[in-house]
Amino acid sequence: MVQVRLYDTTLRDGAQQEGISFSIADKLKIVQKLDEMGIHFIEGGWPGANPKDTEFFSKAKSLNLKHSALVAFGSTRHPESKVDKDAGLQALMEAKTKTVTIVGKSWDLHVTQVLETSLANNLHIVAESVDFLKSKRLTVFFDAEHFFDGYKANPEYAIQVVKAAAQAGADCVVLCDTNGGALPSEITVAIKAVQEAVSVPLGIHVHNDGDLAVANSLAAVQAGVVQVQGTINGYGERCGNANLCSIIPALKLKLGVDCISDKQLAKLTEVSRYIAELANLAPLSQLPYVGTSAFTHKGGLHVSGIMKWEDSYQHINPDLVGNRPKVVVSELSGKGNIIYKAKELGIALPLKGREARQVVQQIKLLESHGFQYEDADASFELLLHRAQPGYKSPFELIDFMVVVERHRRPSREDESELLSEATVKVKVSDKIMHTAAEGNGPVNALDRALRKALLEFYPDLTAIELVDYKVRILEESAGTASQVRVLIESSDGQKQWRTVGSSTNIIEASWLALADSVEYFLLKRNKSRQRS
Amino acid sequence: MVQVRLYDTTLRDGAQQEGISFSIADKLKIVQKLDEMGIHFIEGGWPGANPKDTEFFSKAKSLNLKHSALVAFGSTRHPESKVDKDAGLQALMEAKTKTVTIVGKSWDLHVTQVLETSLANNLHIVAESVDFLKSKRLTVFFDAEHFFDGYKANPEYAIQVVKAAAQAGADCVVLCDTNGGALPSEITVAIKAVQEAVSVPLGIHVHNDGDLAVANSLAAVQAGVVQVQGTINGYGERCGNANLCSIIPALKLKLGVDCISDKQLAKLTEVSRYIAELANLAPLSQLPYVGTSAFTHKGGLHVSGIMKWEDSYQHINPDLVGNRPKVVVSELSGKGNIIYKAKELGIALPLKGREARQVVQQIKLLESHGFQYEDADASFELLLHRAQPGYKSPFELIDFMVVVERHRRPSREDESELLSEATVKVKVSDKIMHTAAEGNGPVNALDRALRKALLEFYPDLTAIELVDYKVRILEESAGTASQVRVLIESSDGQKQWRTVGSSTNIIEASWLALADSVEYFLLKRNKSRQRS
Repeated sequence: MVQVRLYDTTLRDGAQQEGISFSIADKLKIVQKLDEMGIHFIEGGWPGANPKDTEFFSKAKSLNLKHSALVAFGSTRHPESKVDKDAGLQALMEAKTKTVTIVGKSWDLHVTQVLETSLANNLHIVAESVDFLKSKRLTVFFDAEHFFDGYKANPEYAIQVVKAAAQAGADCVVLCDTNGGALPSEITVAIKAVQEAVSVPLGIHVHNDGDLAVANSLAAVQAGVVQVQGTINGYGERCGNANLCSIIPALKLKLGVDCISDKQLAKLTEVSRYIAELANLAPLSQLPYVGTSAFTHKGGLHVSGIMKWEDSYQHINPDLVGNRPKVVVSELSGKGNIIYKAKELGIALPLKGREARQVVQQIKLLESHGFQYEDADASFELLLHRAQPGYKSPFELIDFMVVVERHRRPSREDESELLSEATVKVKVSDKIMHTAAEGNGPVNALDRALRKALLEFYPDLTAIELVDYKVRILEESAGTASQVRVLIESSDGQKQWRTVGSSTNIIEASWLALADSVEYFLLKRNKSRQRS
Repeated sequence: MVQVRLYDTTLRDGAQQEGISFSIADKLKIVQKLDEMGIHFIEGGWPGANPKDTEFFSKAKSLNLKHSALVAFGSTRHPESKVDKDAGLQALMEAKTKTVTIVGKSWDLHVTQVLETSLANNLHIVAESVDFLKSKRLTVFFDAEHFFDGYKANPEYAIQVVKAAAQAGADCVVLCDTNGGALPSEITVAIKAVQEAVSVPLGIHVHNDGDLAVANSLAAVQAGVVQVQGTINGYGERCGNANLCSIIPALKLKLGVDCISDKQLAKLTEVSRYIAELANLAPLSQLPYVGTSAFTHKGGLHVSGIMKWEDSYQHINPDLVGNRPKVVVSELSGKGNIIYKAKELGIALPLKGREARQVVQQIKLLESHGFQYEDADASFELLLHRAQPGYKSPFELIDFMVVVERHRRPSREDESELLSEATVKVKVSDKIMHTAAEGNGPVNALDRALRKALLEFYPDLTAIELVDYKVRILEESAGTASQVRVLIESSDGQKQWRTVGSSTNIIEASWLALADSVEYFLLKRNKSRQRS
């Protein structure tokens, strides 16, 4: 079986996508996640080019990676520098990775017009830079930038660049379709030509400007490259890089190429969504293999087909990539869904058909007001409890008020003070608590005031921590008067639960999600007390 | 030059995408738009399958199409019906189009397990259905459903189905990768096999489950098919259909295949965005060729490259498809980005290298506090103006206060009132305005109060409308005390501009973005007044 090594550049090339900006903490988390999935090489960034990447590599040293090697990225030396004094190469070595990748020019026009040096000198720069890094006992990958465009323009020169890197000892020469415009047939032809001229192991790095990045990567593997570079979810500048989430399953399931284990492949969907979360981008539901819609059926013809034969309308079994099939719920199947979902959550409620139907009606009503229960298991469970006759909430909200004030200091005109304060009035049994708190922003103040009001009755509330707070504006076009959905994730140090609130008023939406979070915690606590 | 006919199924297969539901009026508008772009065949829907599609065809008759032929879609007759009494075929004919497409089974397992009939009977059904429609003098296309899976499972039978349709007079047999899992190499092999067995013109219709739909469509054209089916923006069930917005430019610009004129190609971006608008889906910025990011440059290396040579980092000239290049500003950018961007925005500021470097430093600092200028051109421009010595803002904020209060009605315990109110104190020249407003939520109240305060001095502020309001929680794990970024898009009915604010307090973040929006509007207004 052919073996191919996977090289992830989400943290460097992927971060070039508009709207993506990973923190150092994000980057470290992503490295660990990619390591779990068995990615062979993880490009962490461009040390020296920005301070964040330099700091990242210094922190990454303490990661204990099981499968992956961390790679620092840089470029061939500056045309004006001496190789052993080049700031870029120095920064690269200071990252202290065992493997480095440097990019160099292979398109003649880029050499003369962008790098502004002679073709011969560029060959010299490439060779000298690779040779220098090899002399430091590093594993060196050479990215031949614009290789395929270069091959079209001046095939002889493009191949000379590959040869220069290979002769200087590059461990792999990665052919790049930097502008992303190549066709699969062009990829195949150019790789064959390189293979005839040089025997160095080859890699592929392509962009998706022609909507062909996955096809081009697979064509390269079929032509014999041994390293495939790409990003999770295809993140990257312009139209993105080759999407590893599409390439990996194609290699394993369709081309029979060895790269990661079956168990690692089954983490693919999780990894895709985890990294989307850290990139702060809504995961694209249409993504091949890993999207929430990738195995969804809506058309009546297809749904009746899959009821007769599961694989009739799916190209692979979604379990293989950790995804799951989904049938878009119709009004008739709603009741079954609720019962199924309650079972899935382990909610042991005596949920009869009629009650379940009532819950369906209520959910439909609430969803039309912007609530969404897919991601809010705890709020969903509270809905079920509230549908039970005789359910009583552990507290009752009477009033709240939030004030945010920014005013200038009387003494200094150029400084302002910002104050956020909330008051809350709640009732527990027959007692009314009316209290107030300040906070770092209005929702934080509300959160603190609520806990303060309840703490006398429920001292273990101190255990709750809000670990995630998300805001989504629905119908953004309604401007500041739009419906707002707030999702809150809470933790008591052991378990996590998620609640939802929705309103045209962000404060009220946050309040509803906060109140659900506390109510859910108290409910669960009572239950476990009753049991013990 | 090879000629290929384009067949759009956005209105039928595209509408199967989760979340898409076109009205009849939408469908009629889309047909006209596709006609302008010179699409040869437009599949309008499945008459009989739902009343909306039946009505659509009755209304579509009055459209005066210049380039396109409208196509009605249906399936081969029901196994139990007589061909001349089949309800589906009757409905198809009642659509009164000159061209019809019918889908039939070509995968043996689907025939026996889903259609639940014999292989021989399915051949008979296919032949009889095509023959019947041909006898009505219609142009008939036959969609061989699951052809490529069928060819893998039972090549002989799959080809027999194609033959049956061809012999019955089908004008084109369209080979479908219905489950979207085929590889380009498999497409090529199967098409060659069909061509050896039958001489009927062939078409291709593929789905994107393997992220290969565009590659598979191009491979089919390279193998000799003469009709390509797809949808605008790749809309469709699961991972979508083949994206015509990627296929058309590849055919024209890369494969030299004749399909539409250069002028029609230059409408591609407009068509893509127009149909996204009607589908009520935000246009995907990463879309190849037509996305707003398709020709965007963020990395400093790339930007300095394109300043030296425009085509250095783009695979085609964006004008050819009606798109345009864009440079964004971020922490990854250098001085070059700032200067280029300023030029692009038409900011005629005497921005010297040193000032530009200062702006870069400031942007880096602000971005580390959660601001982001990529999507906020107006805030970026304000930064440049504020860097000019002597710049004076048209107003100055002194204080604001926001109150959100929920309290029970004294008379009715089960009802609550929710109130949002803001007060604003601003200074214009030497005058101080202190005023208040209510709103639908705290930000809306703040927005109203600010305008109210400024309206006396700047009556044309009434023209501004907030058309989009986005909130992003940064580092969500900090819970309700996280940094919040607010992006606002405003419009004066003619132009749109976007501003950003960031703070741990959502009210303050919104305030900053609102204030920038108003300041930008006033600045532009002054400029155009000075000019006139």
